[in-house]
Amino acid sequence: MNRFITLSVFILVLSFSAVAQNKILVFQTDFGLKDGAVSAMKGVAMGVSSDLKIFDLTHEIPAYNIWEASYRLMQTAFYYPKGTVFVSVVDPGVGSSRKSVVLKTLNGDLFVSPDNGTLTLISEKLGIDSIREIDETKNRLPGSEASYTFHGRDVYAYTGARLAAGELRFSDVGPLLPSKVVSIEYQKPTLENETIKGNIPILDIQYGNIWTNIDAAIFKQLNLKYGEVLSVEIFHSGKSVYKGNMPYVTTFSAVKNGAPLCYLNSLLNISFALNEASFAEINHVASGPEWSVVISKAVKK
Amino acid sequence: MNRFITLSVFILVLSFSAVAQNKILVFQTDFGLKDGAVSAMKGVAMGVSSDLKIFDLTHEIPAYNIWEASYRLMQTAFYYPKGTVFVSVVDPGVGSSRKSVVLKTLNGDLFVSPDNGTLTLISEKLGIDSIREIDETKNRLPGSEASYTFHGRDVYAYTGARLAAGELRFSDVGPLLPSKVVSIEYQKPTLENETIKGNIPILDIQYGNIWTNIDAAIFKQLNLKYGEVLSVEIFHSGKSVYKGNMPYVTTFSAVKNGAPLCYLNSLLNISFALNEASFAEINHVASGPEWSVVISKAVKK
Amino acid sequence: MNRFITLSVFILVLSFSAVAQNKILVFQTDFGLKDGAVSAMKGVAMGVSSDLKIFDLTHEIPAYNIWEASYRLMQTAFYYPKGTVFVSVVDPGVGSSRKSVVLKTLNGDLFVSPDNGTLTLISEKLGIDSIREIDETKNRLPGSEASYTFHGRDVYAYTGARLAAGELRFSDVGPLLPSKVVSIEYQKPTLENETIKGNIPILDIQYGNIWTNIDAAIFKQLNLKYGEVLSVEIFHSGKSVYKGNMPYVTTFSAVKNGAPLCYLNSLLNISFALNEASFAEINHVASGPEWSVVISKAVKK
Repeated sequence: MNRFITLSVFILVLSFSAVAQNKILVFQTDFGLKDGAVSAMKGVAMGVSSDLKIFDLTHEIPAYNIWEASYRLMQTAFYYPKGTVFVSVVDPGVGSSRKSVVLKTLNGDLFVSPDNGTLTLISEKLGIDSIREIDETKNRLPGSEASYTFHGRDVYAYTGARLAAGELRFSDVGPLLPSKVVSIEYQKPTLENETIKGNIPILDIQYGNIWTNIDAAIFKQLNLKYGEVLSVEIFHSGKSVYKGNMPYVTTFSAVKNGAPLCYLNSLLNISFALNEASFAEINHVASGPEWSVVISKAVKK
Repeated sequence: MNRFITLSVFILVLSFSAVAQNKILVFQTDFGLKDGAVSAMKGVAMGVSSDLKIFDLTHEIPAYNIWEASYRLMQTAFYYPKGTVFVSVVDPGVGSSRKSVVLKTLNGDLFVSPDNGTLTLISEKLGIDSIREIDETKNRLPGSEASYTFHGRDVYAYTGARLAAGELRFSDVGPLLPSKVVSIEYQKPTLENETIKGNIPILDIQYGNIWTNIDAAIFKQLNLKYGEVLSVEIFHSGKSVYKGNMPYVTTFSAVKNGAPLCYLNSLLNISFALNEASFAEINHVASGPEWSVVISKAVKK
Repeated sequence: MNRFITLSVFILVLSFSAVAQNKILVFQTDFGLKDGAVSAMKGVAMGVSSDLKIFDLTHEIPAYNIWEASYRLMQTAFYYPKGTVFVSVVDPGVGSSRKSVVLKTLNGDLFVSPDNGTLTLISEKLGIDSIREIDETKNRLPGSEASYTFHGRDVYAYTGARLAAGELRFSDVGPLLPSKVVSIEYQKPTLENETIKGNIPILDIQYGNIWTNIDAAIFKQLNLKYGEVLSVEIFHSGKSVYKGNMPYVTTFSAVKNGAPLCYLNSLLNISFALNEASFAEINHVASGPEWSVVISKAVKK
């Protein structure tokens, strides 16, 4: 009886790990949409299984910008159902010694990517279950062996599609690696003397808003009420680029057109904006690991 | 027996209204495709039901341009099967007093949008069945309560997906509103003394063609035959910007490269173009509620 | 018995040709994604059958660029499963005498397009099974008869969708045409005196790399080993635009940032690039039928 239960549990675990993917496959690249590269990746996936549900994260990652690739995964993956497979191809070092890997996060998502820093933020956010190096002798589009440069299509899209379709088990991807991805350094949020330091990981490009990595939980410790004023200084590689005060509001229209404001963005991080104008453009602020901010409650005069 | 029939009809009507949506969900925004915002909306929809068939109308609506959002819905929705759910998020007043609504049109389509003018043209074209305000206490992505700014994902995409999937009935969206949407004023087509006035709602951007709101039925009353010449004057806020004559043709190649022509566009509205060149760019013409045209049959000399 | 087998085979062949399409429908246009045109085409397809799996090749073909439309089909179609239906609408001559056709290639793919040169390269690559002219009196979105200019939606998308869904058989598209498409002339690759001539059909736009039509099989006859140096000259309409030497490598990072290299691209054609910079922009090189290259092994000094 005991043996029977053990066996059942064993089978259950086995079958769970075999069906854990949900047939949803999400692509991210820096290829743009002007040529056929992204479409060819989807064609390869359809050749694996026409049951797949294929989506785009974005294909407008600036060329070679691994940091932004990392950020977009972190920003978006959470909103897909558990067990989704993401394929990210921002790969300036294609053909070099960087490894092709599949990261399994604690929630059962799979991330197929070069291990070049792209996995920095998603591994911090979702937690690492395990990482495997793709064995390209087994996991490669049949007939593609002679090509040296389109790993995105021949290895990543093909492997991602087979994982999503349940045709390839994570355990058969290739050898286990140490549970640590290649990571990009950046300023993590810190609170000291009622002053918070943080990073500008990304802009809200379409509108020119400044998004920080300072989340609601830390920000709350400044005890700022809606309508109260925040003092903001922004630095690029340590040099001050912007300094100013702005109210903490729940809606852009709470201030006049063109006026600055701070708010919690859709990721619940403190962000800066101008109402109906571009903060980034007007104040020459950009994003990346080398941008930092210092904020505190403005002193009343 | 009578009671039985009544009951059956009642059940039939109930079940009909429960299954009226066709699982097709179409998104329109001004977010662009450079970040993960649109993808996150689709992820939320997949979390509701992986049976949904998700499409984009466009995500390149110019930022905050409610008029163009209204036009694109009117131009496109008709071509999807009846019962399609459209989610449109062009929302400069997010967080202000504008209402979040679902418009049901007479053909059974549903439009999830802020009621800020976006629904102007589609409500005129398809007719209003009824309008409900979204009760955000019930219709909101679980866990998103603390966020103030991404209604597109947390309320609109989530509600649209549940409606499309048949998990939420239109009657459960929230309270009924009066059957009237917030509308933007514009010049409707009029015929007087063999002269037609109208509006330029939009450009055919990719080619720089000028699209009017003067449809074939009104235009026909000028009795212009193919090859005959139309006199065209274009005004911006009442000031003349362009004046010229052009033939009425069925194909662009009927005139020389660079020459002007008028034709019925794919919506069967009178439009102006240059063969293989941009009428809009060369003649400095744009579109919107403040642009108008006056046309008549050209006088033969 | 013999008769029975013959009959069975006959029925099998019949039913095979009736179900040969795989419900995958791929769109390519020069419409861009700023308006609702592409979305309307997909709406029409959904109206035909919601079982279709719809993908984009690209909608960013430069306006009226038939050559590039031809190239993108050739580059990409191969990666979709056999039996896929492609709809390509780059149609400067809409309404003129160009024919609307469906090309069936030897692998069973179908290409719905104006016969204006778009089918040049795909017909060479996949081989022509047969070509039919679309009978627009039968194959046109019901209700669209009065419109003269949106063949893409009313004829091509509608016909492509019905073919993909199995609602329309290829044999019912319209009358058979001679098995020859309208073709654009270009320099085919030739080898003479250890020198290869070829064409630059396209750029790898996103990165500014130069792709030639000289494939690995011909290139191999130069006997260049990895690390050895190639002499490259590029001509526009016969006039020299670039002349230089570069190593033949398997990975971009084999040379310094900004340095030139040649490599086999993902289509296994010889290509030129600068590591992490744009060869096309810096050397003023573009693509099309009028661009040619001459390459040979560099002479050691």
